[in-house]
Amino acid sequence: MTAQGVFISFEGIDGSGKSTQARLLAEHLRGLGHQIVLTREPGGSPGAEEIRRLVLEGDPNRWSAETEILLFTAARRDHLERTITPALEAGKTVICDRFADSTRMYQGLSRGDLRAVVDKLHALMIKQEPDLTILIDMDPGTGLSRALSRGTGEERFESFGESLQQKMRQGFLDLAAEFNERFTTIDGNREIDVVASAVQQIVAERFP
Amino acid sequence: MTAQGVFISFEGIDGSGKSTQARLLAEHLRGLGHQIVLTREPGGSPGAEEIRRLVLEGDPNRWSAETEILLFTAARRDHLERTITPALEAGKTVICDRFADSTRMYQGLSRGDLRAVVDKLHALMIKQEPDLTILIDMDPGTGLSRALSRGTGEERFESFGESLQQKMRQGFLDLAAEFNERFTTIDGNREIDVVASAVQQIVAERFP
Ligand SMILES: Nc1ncnc2c1ncn2[C@@H]1O[C@H](COP(=O)(O)OP(=O)(O)OP(=O)(O)O)[C@@H](O)[C@H]1O
Ligand SMILES: Nc1ncnc2c1ncn2[C@@H]1O[C@H](COP(=O)(O)OP(=O)(O)OP(=O)(O)O)[C@@H](O)[C@H]1O
Ligand SMILES: [Mg+2]
Ligand SMILES: [Mg+2]
Repeated sequence: MTAQGVFISFEGIDGSGKSTQARLLAEHLRGLGHQIVLTREPGGSPGAEEIRRLVLEGDPNRWSAETEILLFTAARRDHLERTITPALEAGKTVICDRFADSTRMYQGLSRGDLRAVVDKLHALMIKQEPDLTILIDMDPGTGLSRALSRGTGEERFESFGESLQQKMRQGFLDLAAEFNERFTTIDGNREIDVVASAVQQIVAERFP
Repeated sequence: MTAQGVFISFEGIDGSGKSTQARLLAEHLRGLGHQIVLTREPGGSPGAEEIRRLVLEGDPNRWSAETEILLFTAARRDHLERTITPALEAGKTVICDRFADSTRMYQGLSRGDLRAVVDKLHALMIKQEPDLTILIDMDPGTGLSRALSRGTGEERFESFGESLQQKMRQGFLDLAAEFNERFTTIDGNREIDVVASAVQQIVAERFP
Protein backbone atom coordinates (compact mmCIF):
# COMPACT_ATOMS: atom_id res chain seq x y z
CA MET A 1 0.00 0.00 0.00
CA THR A 2 1.19 3.50 -0.86
CA ALA A 3 1.52 5.92 2.05
CA GLN A 4 -0.89 8.85 1.98
CA GLY A 5 0.64 11.90 0.26
CA VAL A 6 1.20 15.29 1.83
CA PHE A 7 -1.23 18.19 1.29
CA ILE A 8 0.29 21.71 1.34
CA SER A 9 -1.67 24.92 0.81
CA PHE A 10 -0.57 28.52 0.27
CA GLU A 11 -2.59 31.41 1.68
CA GLY A 12 -2.17 35.16 1.83
CA ILE A 13 -3.56 38.43 0.53
CA ASP A 14 -3.72 39.28 -3.17
CA GLY A 15 -0.35 39.57 -4.82
CA SER A 16 1.53 38.10 -1.86
CA GLY A 17 3.19 35.53 -4.12
CA LYS A 18 1.09 32.39 -3.52
CA SER A 19 0.96 31.30 -7.16
CA THR A 20 4.64 32.08 -7.65
CA GLN A 21 5.72 30.17 -4.56
CA ALA A 22 3.38 27.23 -5.16
CA ARG A 23 4.92 26.81 -8.62
CA LEU A 24 8.49 27.17 -7.35
CA LEU A 25 7.88 24.63 -4.57
CA ALA A 26 6.39 22.21 -7.09
CA GLU A 27 9.47 22.56 -9.31
CA HIS A 28 11.81 22.12 -6.37
CA LEU A 29 10.09 18.98 -5.09
CA ARG A 30 9.83 17.52 -8.60
CA GLY A 31 13.58 18.05 -8.87
CA LEU A 32 13.95 15.93 -5.73
CA GLY A 33 11.96 13.14 -7.44
CA HIS A 34 8.58 13.64 -5.76
CA GLN A 35 5.32 13.27 -7.62
CA ILE A 36 3.55 16.61 -7.42
CA VAL A 37 0.03 17.77 -8.19
CA LEU A 38 -0.02 21.58 -8.40
CA THR A 39 -3.55 22.91 -8.17
CA ARG A 40 -5.54 25.98 -7.14
CA GLU A 41 -8.82 27.25 -5.73
CA PRO A 42 -11.43 28.14 -6.63
CA GLY A 43 -11.07 25.56 -9.40
CA GLY A 44 -8.60 22.71 -9.69
CA SER A 45 -10.91 20.24 -11.48
CA PRO A 46 -12.95 20.69 -14.66
CA GLY A 47 -16.26 21.05 -12.79
CA ALA A 48 -14.79 23.35 -10.13
CA GLU A 49 -13.27 25.57 -12.84
CA GLU A 50 -16.77 25.98 -14.32
CA ILE A 51 -18.13 26.96 -10.91
CA ARG A 52 -15.17 29.34 -10.54
CA ARG A 53 -16.24 31.12 -13.72
CA LEU A 54 -19.82 31.33 -12.46
CA VAL A 55 -18.65 32.98 -9.22
CA LEU A 56 -15.84 35.25 -10.41
CA GLU A 57 -17.17 36.52 -13.73
CA GLY A 58 -19.98 38.99 -14.21
CA ASP A 59 -21.48 41.47 -11.76
CA PRO A 60 -19.83 41.13 -8.32
CA ASN A 61 -23.27 41.53 -6.68
CA ARG A 62 -25.01 38.82 -8.63
CA TRP A 63 -24.62 36.33 -5.75
CA SER A 64 -25.31 36.92 -2.07
CA ALA A 65 -22.55 36.00 0.36
CA GLU A 66 -24.46 32.84 1.33
CA THR A 67 -24.93 31.66 -2.26
CA GLU A 68 -21.29 32.39 -2.96
CA ILE A 69 -20.23 30.25 0.01
CA LEU A 70 -22.39 27.40 -1.30
CA LEU A 71 -20.83 27.70 -4.76
CA PHE A 72 -17.29 27.77 -3.36
CA THR A 73 -18.11 24.73 -1.23
CA ALA A 74 -19.52 22.89 -4.26
CA ALA A 75 -16.33 23.72 -6.20
CA ARG A 76 -14.16 22.58 -3.29
CA ARG A 77 -16.06 19.32 -2.96
CA ASP A 78 -15.53 18.59 -6.65
CA HIS A 79 -11.85 19.60 -6.48
CA LEU A 80 -11.36 17.32 -3.49
CA GLU A 81 -13.09 14.31 -5.04
CA ARG A 82 -11.60 14.59 -8.51
CA THR A 83 -8.13 16.01 -7.91
CA ILE A 84 -6.89 16.19 -4.31
CA THR A 85 -8.08 12.96 -2.69
CA PRO A 86 -7.06 10.67 -5.61
CA ALA A 87 -3.60 12.28 -5.66
CA LEU A 88 -3.10 11.93 -1.90
CA GLU A 89 -4.26 8.32 -2.04
CA ALA A 90 -1.69 7.65 -4.77
CA GLY A 91 0.98 9.01 -2.44
CA LYS A 92 1.50 12.25 -4.35
CA THR A 93 2.24 15.64 -2.82
CA VAL A 94 -0.58 18.10 -3.45
CA ILE A 95 0.33 21.80 -3.55
CA CYS A 96 -2.73 24.00 -3.57
CA ASP A 97 -2.84 27.74 -4.27
CA ARG A 98 -5.53 28.77 -1.72
CA PHE A 99 -7.90 26.34 0.01
CA ALA A 100 -10.66 26.53 2.64
CA ASP A 101 -8.83 29.19 4.67
CA SER A 102 -9.47 31.68 1.86
CA THR A 103 -13.22 31.09 2.21
CA ARG A 104 -12.99 31.43 5.99
CA MET A 105 -11.19 34.72 5.43
CA TYR A 106 -12.98 36.42 2.55
CA GLN A 107 -16.53 35.28 3.28
CA GLY A 108 -16.02 35.22 7.04
CA LEU A 109 -14.79 38.81 6.99
CA SER A 110 -17.44 40.07 4.61
CA ARG A 111 -20.13 39.80 7.29
CA GLY A 112 -19.73 39.00 10.96
CA ASP A 113 -22.05 36.01 11.14
CA LEU A 114 -20.81 34.20 8.05
CA ARG A 115 -17.76 32.50 9.52
CA ALA A 116 -20.10 30.15 11.42
CA VAL A 117 -21.89 29.24 8.17
CA VAL A 118 -18.57 28.61 6.44
CA ASP A 119 -17.45 26.37 9.30
CA LYS A 120 -20.67 24.35 9.38
CA LEU A 121 -20.59 23.79 5.62
CA HIS A 122 -16.94 22.77 5.84
CA ALA A 123 -17.66 20.31 8.66
CA LEU A 124 -20.56 18.82 6.70
CA MET A 125 -19.24 18.68 3.12
CA ILE A 126 -15.43 19.04 3.10
CA LYS A 127 -13.79 18.01 6.39
CA GLN A 128 -10.30 17.82 4.83
CA GLU A 129 -7.59 20.26 5.95
CA PRO A 130 -4.07 20.64 4.53
CA ASP A 131 -1.22 19.03 6.47
CA LEU A 132 0.69 22.28 6.15
CA THR A 133 -0.54 25.77 5.29
CA ILE A 134 2.05 28.38 4.38
CA LEU A 135 0.83 31.91 4.97
CA ILE A 136 2.79 34.43 2.94
CA ASP A 137 2.47 37.53 5.07
CA MET A 138 3.26 40.89 3.61
CA ASP A 139 2.63 44.59 3.46
CA PRO A 140 -0.71 45.12 1.62
CA GLY A 141 0.60 48.13 -0.33
CA THR A 142 3.29 46.00 -1.95
CA GLY A 143 0.85 43.13 -2.61
CA LEU A 144 -1.69 45.45 -4.20
CA SER A 145 0.79 47.04 -6.60
CA ARG A 146 2.10 43.58 -7.58
CA ALA A 147 -1.44 42.29 -8.19
CA LEU A 148 -2.55 45.31 -10.22
CA SER A 149 0.56 45.11 -12.38
CA ARG A 150 -0.70 41.78 -13.78
CA GLY A 151 -4.21 42.79 -14.99
CA THR A 152 -5.85 39.34 -15.28
CA GLY A 153 -9.45 40.62 -15.28
CA GLU A 154 -10.30 38.80 -12.05
CA GLU A 155 -9.64 41.76 -9.82
CA ARG A 156 -12.80 41.52 -7.72
CA PHE A 157 -11.14 41.34 -4.36
CA GLU A 158 -8.23 43.54 -5.42
CA SER A 159 -10.64 46.31 -6.32
CA PHE A 160 -11.72 46.67 -2.71
CA GLY A 161 -8.54 48.60 -1.97
CA GLU A 162 -5.81 48.78 0.60
CA SER A 163 -7.73 49.24 3.85
CA LEU A 164 -9.64 46.03 3.22
CA GLN A 165 -6.32 44.36 2.37
CA GLN A 166 -5.09 45.44 5.80
CA LYS A 167 -8.07 43.69 7.38
CA MET A 168 -7.39 40.64 5.23
CA ARG A 169 -3.78 40.56 6.33
CA GLN A 170 -4.86 40.61 9.95
CA GLY A 171 -7.57 38.05 9.23
CA PHE A 172 -5.02 35.62 7.81
CA LEU A 173 -2.72 36.18 10.81
CA ASP A 174 -5.68 35.42 13.10
CA LEU A 175 -6.41 32.21 11.17
CA ALA A 176 -2.75 31.22 11.48
CA ALA A 177 -3.06 31.62 15.25
CA GLU A 178 -6.35 29.70 15.34
CA PHE A 179 -4.95 26.73 13.39
CA ASN A 180 -1.39 27.06 14.61
CA GLU A 181 -0.42 23.37 14.29
CA ARG A 182 -0.77 23.37 10.54
CA PHE A 183 -0.02 27.05 9.72
CA THR A 184 3.44 28.52 9.21
CA THR A 185 3.79 32.21 8.49
CA ILE A 186 6.63 33.53 6.35
CA ASP A 187 7.68 37.05 5.41
CA GLY A 188 6.71 37.66 1.77
CA ASN A 189 8.25 41.13 1.49
CA ARG A 190 11.59 39.64 0.47
CA GLU A 191 12.91 38.68 -2.98
CA ILE A 192 11.21 35.78 -4.72
CA ASP A 193 14.14 33.34 -4.32
CA VAL A 194 14.63 34.24 -0.65
CA VAL A 195 10.98 33.46 0.03
CA ALA A 196 11.29 30.25 -2.03
CA SER A 197 14.25 29.08 0.09
CA ALA A 198 12.28 29.77 3.26
CA VAL A 199 9.38 27.69 1.89
CA GLN A 200 11.69 24.81 0.97
CA GLN A 201 13.23 24.83 4.44
CA ILE A 202 9.83 24.71 6.16
CA VAL A 203 8.72 21.79 3.99
CA ALA A 204 11.98 19.92 4.56
CA GLU A 205 11.65 20.36 8.32
CA ARG A 206 8.00 19.44 8.45
CA PHE A 207 8.25 16.35 6.21
CA PRO A 208 11.78 14.98 6.61
CA MET B 1 -48.13 46.54 5.94
CA THR B 2 -48.96 43.92 3.34
CA ALA B 3 -49.78 40.47 4.66
CA GLN B 4 -47.25 37.78 3.78
CA GLY B 5 -48.17 35.96 0.55
CA VAL B 6 -48.88 32.27 0.21
CA PHE B 7 -46.25 29.83 -1.07
CA ILE B 8 -47.54 26.76 -2.96
CA SER B 9 -45.33 24.06 -4.49
CA PHE B 10 -46.09 21.19 -6.85
CA GLU B 11 -44.28 17.89 -6.54
CA GLY B 12 -44.52 14.52 -8.24
CA ILE B 13 -42.71 12.14 -10.56
CA ASP B 14 -41.71 13.10 -14.10
CA GLY B 15 -44.63 13.80 -16.38
CA SER B 16 -47.16 13.83 -13.57
CA GLY B 17 -48.42 17.25 -14.70
CA LYS B 18 -46.68 19.62 -12.25
CA SER B 19 -45.83 22.28 -14.87
CA THR B 20 -49.27 22.00 -16.45
CA GLN B 21 -51.10 22.31 -13.13
CA ALA B 22 -48.85 25.06 -11.79
CA ARG B 23 -49.61 27.13 -14.90
CA LEU B 24 -53.35 26.41 -14.73
CA LEU B 25 -53.50 27.33 -11.05
CA ALA B 26 -51.63 30.55 -11.77
CA GLU B 27 -54.13 31.44 -14.53
CA HIS B 28 -57.08 30.58 -12.29
CA LEU B 29 -55.85 32.69 -9.37
CA ARG B 30 -54.92 35.59 -11.65
CA GLY B 31 -58.49 35.43 -12.94
CA LEU B 32 -59.64 35.88 -9.35
CA GLY B 33 -57.49 39.02 -9.09
CA HIS B 34 -54.53 37.62 -7.15
CA GLN B 35 -50.95 38.65 -7.86
CA ILE B 36 -49.09 35.51 -8.84
CA VAL B 37 -45.43 34.64 -9.29
CA LEU B 38 -45.13 31.38 -11.21
CA THR B 39 -41.66 29.90 -10.87
CA ARG B 40 -39.77 26.61 -10.96
CA GLU B 41 -36.82 24.67 -9.61
CA PRO B 42 -34.03 24.16 -10.24
CA GLY B 43 -33.94 27.72 -11.51
CA GLY B 44 -36.42 30.53 -10.97
CA SER B 45 -33.93 33.41 -10.87
CA PRO B 46 -31.22 34.40 -13.37
CA GLY B 47 -28.38 33.01 -11.22
CA ALA B 48 -30.26 29.85 -10.32
CA GLU B 49 -31.03 29.22 -13.99
CA GLU B 50 -27.30 29.35 -14.71
CA ILE B 51 -26.65 26.84 -11.94
CA ARG B 52 -29.49 24.71 -13.36
CA ARG B 53 -27.67 24.54 -16.68
CA LEU B 54 -24.44 23.58 -14.93
CA VAL B 55 -26.19 20.69 -13.16
CA LEU B 56 -28.56 19.40 -15.82
CA GLU B 57 -26.47 19.73 -18.98
CA GLY B 58 -23.49 17.61 -19.94
CA ASP B 59 -22.42 14.20 -18.66
CA PRO B 60 -24.80 13.01 -15.88
CA ASN B 61 -21.78 11.71 -13.94
CA ARG B 62 -19.81 14.92 -13.98
CA TRP B 63 -20.94 15.80 -10.44
CA SER B 64 -21.03 13.55 -7.40
CA ALA B 65 -24.28 13.38 -5.48
CA GLU B 66 -22.80 15.62 -2.76
CA THR B 67 -21.62 18.31 -5.20
CA GLU B 68 -24.99 18.19 -6.92
CA ILE B 69 -26.78 18.76 -3.60
CA LEU B 70 -24.54 21.78 -2.94
CA LEU B 71 -25.29 23.19 -6.39
CA PHE B 72 -29.03 22.67 -5.99
CA THR B 73 -28.87 24.34 -2.58
CA ALA B 74 -26.94 27.29 -4.04
CA ALA B 75 -29.58 27.62 -6.77
CA ARG B 76 -32.40 27.40 -4.22
CA ARG B 77 -30.79 30.02 -2.01
CA ASP B 78 -30.55 32.41 -4.96
CA HIS B 79 -34.11 31.63 -6.06
CA LEU B 80 -35.37 32.28 -2.55
CA GLU B 81 -33.50 35.57 -2.12
CA ARG B 82 -34.18 37.01 -5.55
CA THR B 83 -37.64 35.66 -6.45
CA ILE B 84 -39.61 33.90 -3.72
CA THR B 85 -38.98 35.95 -0.58
CA PRO B 86 -39.47 39.38 -2.24
CA ALA B 87 -42.75 38.15 -3.79
CA LEU B 88 -44.06 36.74 -0.49
CA GLU B 89 -43.10 39.94 1.31
CA ALA B 90 -45.04 41.93 -1.30
CA GLY B 91 -48.08 39.80 -0.49
CA LYS B 92 -48.01 37.85 -3.76
CA THR B 93 -48.87 34.18 -4.17
CA VAL B 94 -45.85 32.13 -5.24
CA ILE B 95 -46.52 28.96 -7.22
CA CYS B 96 -43.40 26.86 -7.60
CA ASP B 97 -42.94 23.86 -9.90
CA ARG B 98 -40.81 21.63 -7.60
CA PHE B 99 -39.01 22.86 -4.48
CA ALA B 100 -36.89 21.33 -1.71
CA ASP B 101 -38.97 18.14 -1.59
CA SER B 102 -37.60 17.20 -5.02
CA THR B 103 -34.05 17.36 -3.63
CA ARG B 104 -35.08 15.31 -0.58
CA MET B 105 -36.53 12.74 -2.97
CA TYR B 106 -34.07 12.50 -5.85
CA GLN B 107 -30.84 12.98 -3.91
CA GLY B 108 -32.14 11.29 -0.78
CA LEU B 109 -33.14 8.22 -2.76
CA SER B 110 -29.97 8.07 -4.83
CA ARG B 111 -27.93 6.92 -1.80
CA GLY B 112 -29.18 5.97 1.63
CA ASP B 113 -27.11 8.39 3.68
CA LEU B 114 -27.75 11.49 1.59
CA ARG B 115 -31.13 12.48 2.99
CA ALA B 116 -29.39 13.54 6.21
CA VAL B 117 -26.99 15.76 4.24
CA VAL B 118 -29.90 17.30 2.31
CA ASP B 119 -31.72 18.02 5.57
CA LYS B 120 -28.70 19.59 7.26
CA LEU B 121 -28.00 21.83 4.27
CA HIS B 122 -31.67 22.84 4.14
CA ALA B 123 -31.70 23.67 7.86
CA LEU B 124 -28.52 25.74 7.49
CA MET B 125 -29.05 27.59 4.20
CA ILE B 126 -32.73 27.49 3.20
CA LYS B 127 -35.11 26.95 6.14
CA GLN B 128 -38.18 28.04 4.13
CA GLU B 129 -40.93 25.50 3.36
CA PRO B 130 -44.04 26.02 1.21
CA ASP B 131 -47.33 26.70 3.00
CA LEU B 132 -48.95 24.06 0.81
CA THR B 133 -47.37 21.31 -1.28
CA ILE B 134 -49.56 19.56 -3.82
CA LEU B 135 -48.29 16.10 -4.68
CA ILE B 136 -49.64 14.91 -8.02
CA ASP B 137 -49.62 11.17 -7.55
CA MET B 138 -49.89 8.91 -10.55
CA ASP B 139 -49.05 5.67 -12.24
CA PRO B 140 -45.36 5.87 -13.34
CA GLY B 141 -46.05 4.19 -16.69
CA THR B 142 -48.43 6.97 -17.68
CA GLY B 143 -46.07 9.67 -16.38
CA LEU B 144 -43.12 8.22 -18.28
CA SER B 145 -44.92 8.07 -21.61
CA ARG B 146 -46.17 11.65 -21.14
CA ALA B 147 -42.66 12.89 -20.30
CA LEU B 148 -40.96 11.08 -23.20
CA SER B 149 -43.54 12.42 -25.64
CA ARG B 150 -42.18 15.95 -25.03
CA GLY B 151 -38.46 15.44 -25.76
CA THR B 152 -37.01 18.52 -24.05
CA GLY B 153 -33.41 17.24 -23.86
CA GLU B 154 -33.39 17.30 -20.06
CA GLU B 155 -34.34 13.66 -19.66
CA ARG B 156 -31.74 12.75 -17.06
CA PHE B 157 -34.12 11.42 -14.46
CA GLU B 158 -36.59 10.11 -17.02
CA SER B 159 -33.86 7.93 -18.54
CA PHE B 160 -33.59 5.91 -15.35
CA GLY B 161 -36.74 4.02 -16.31
CA GLU B 162 -39.96 2.84 -14.80
CA SER B 163 -38.81 0.81 -11.78
CA LEU B 164 -36.96 3.84 -10.42
CA GLN B 165 -40.09 5.90 -11.11
CA GLN B 166 -42.00 3.40 -8.94
CA LYS B 167 -39.53 4.07 -6.11
CA MET B 168 -39.88 7.81 -6.71
CA ARG B 169 -43.65 7.58 -6.51
CA GLN B 170 -43.38 5.79 -3.18
CA GLY B 171 -40.71 8.24 -2.04
CA PHE B 172 -43.03 11.19 -2.68
CA LEU B 173 -45.88 9.43 -0.87
CA ASP B 174 -43.53 8.88 2.08
CA LEU B 175 -42.59 12.58 2.07
CA ALA B 176 -46.28 13.50 2.01
CA ALA B 177 -46.76 11.38 5.13
CA GLU B 178 -43.68 12.86 6.80
CA PHE B 179 -44.79 16.47 6.19
CA ASN B 180 -48.50 15.81 6.31
CA GLU B 181 -49.57 19.27 7.54
CA ARG B 182 -48.42 20.99 4.38
CA PHE B 183 -48.77 18.16 1.82
CA THR B 184 -51.96 17.29 -0.04
CA THR B 185 -51.94 14.36 -2.46
CA ILE B 186 -54.18 14.34 -5.52
CA ASP B 187 -54.79 11.71 -8.17
CA GLY B 188 -53.02 12.79 -11.38
CA ASN B 189 -54.28 9.94 -13.56
CA ARG B 190 -57.40 11.91 -14.48
CA GLU B 191 -57.98 14.43 -17.29
CA ILE B 192 -56.09 17.72 -17.06
CA ASP B 193 -59.17 19.83 -16.23
CA VAL B 194 -60.41 17.35 -13.61
CA VAL B 195 -57.03 17.55 -11.86
CA ALA B 196 -57.06 21.35 -12.21
CA SER B 197 -60.47 21.56 -10.49
CA ALA B 198 -59.19 19.38 -7.65
CA VAL B 199 -56.19 21.69 -7.24
CA GLN B 200 -58.42 24.80 -7.20
CA GLN B 201 -60.66 23.25 -4.57
CA ILE B 202 -57.73 22.40 -2.30
CA VAL B 203 -56.33 25.92 -2.58
CA ALA B 204 -59.74 27.48 -1.93
CA GLU B 205 -60.24 25.33 1.17
CA ARG B 206 -56.73 25.90 2.51
CA PHE B 207 -56.67 29.69 1.94
CA PRO B 208 -60.27 30.88 2.17
N1 LIG C 1 8.71 38.16 -3.48
C1 LIG C 1 8.35 38.87 -4.56
N2 LIG C 1 8.95 40.03 -4.87
C2 LIG C 1 8.55 40.73 -5.94
N3 LIG C 1 7.58 40.39 -6.78
C3 LIG C 1 6.92 39.24 -6.51
C4 LIG C 1 7.27 38.43 -5.40
N4 LIG C 1 6.44 37.35 -5.38
C5 LIG C 1 5.63 37.49 -6.45
N5 LIG C 1 5.93 38.60 -7.14
C6 LIG C 1 5.24 39.13 -8.33
O1 LIG C 1 4.05 39.74 -7.85
C7 LIG C 1 2.94 39.40 -8.67
C8 LIG C 1 1.92 38.62 -7.84
O2 LIG C 1 2.47 37.35 -7.48
P1 LIG C 1 1.54 36.06 -7.47
O3 LIG C 1 0.69 36.01 -8.67
O4 LIG C 1 2.41 34.89 -7.18
O5 LIG C 1 0.67 36.44 -6.18
P2 LIG C 1 -0.64 35.72 -5.66
O6 LIG C 1 -0.52 35.70 -4.18
O7 LIG C 1 -0.82 34.43 -6.35
O8 LIG C 1 -1.75 36.77 -6.10
P3 LIG C 1 -3.34 36.50 -6.23
O9 LIG C 1 -3.88 36.41 -4.84
O10 LIG C 1 -3.84 37.73 -6.92
O11 LIG C 1 -3.50 35.23 -7.03
C9 LIG C 1 3.52 38.59 -9.82
O12 LIG C 1 3.75 39.46 -10.90
C10 LIG C 1 4.81 38.05 -9.27
O13 LIG C 1 5.78 37.81 -10.26
N1 LIG D 1 -53.81 14.92 -16.59
C1 LIG D 1 -53.16 14.75 -17.75
N2 LIG D 1 -53.62 13.91 -18.68
C2 LIG D 1 -52.97 13.77 -19.85
N3 LIG D 1 -51.85 14.41 -20.19
C3 LIG D 1 -51.34 15.27 -19.29
C4 LIG D 1 -51.96 15.48 -18.03
N4 LIG D 1 -51.23 16.38 -17.34
C5 LIG D 1 -50.20 16.71 -18.14
N5 LIG D 1 -50.26 16.03 -19.32
C6 LIG D 1 -49.30 16.11 -20.42
O1 LIG D 1 -48.20 15.29 -20.03
C7 LIG D 1 -46.98 15.91 -20.34
C8 LIG D 1 -46.21 16.15 -19.04
O2 LIG D 1 -46.90 17.14 -18.27
P1 LIG D 1 -46.08 18.22 -17.44
O3 LIG D 1 -44.97 18.77 -18.27
O4 LIG D 1 -47.04 19.16 -16.85
O5 LIG D 1 -45.49 17.25 -16.33
P2 LIG D 1 -44.36 17.56 -15.26
O6 LIG D 1 -44.79 16.89 -14.01
O7 LIG D 1 -44.11 19.02 -15.21
O8 LIG D 1 -43.13 16.79 -15.87
P3 LIG D 1 -41.57 16.99 -15.54
O9 LIG D 1 -41.34 16.39 -14.19
O10 LIG D 1 -40.85 16.20 -16.57
O11 LIG D 1 -41.30 18.47 -15.59
C9 LIG D 1 -47.33 17.19 -21.09
O12 LIG D 1 -47.26 16.94 -22.47
C10 LIG D 1 -48.74 17.50 -20.63
O13 LIG D 1 -49.48 18.20 -21.60
MG1 LIG E 1 -2.40 33.69 -7.53
MG1 LIG F 1 -42.37 20.12 -15.55
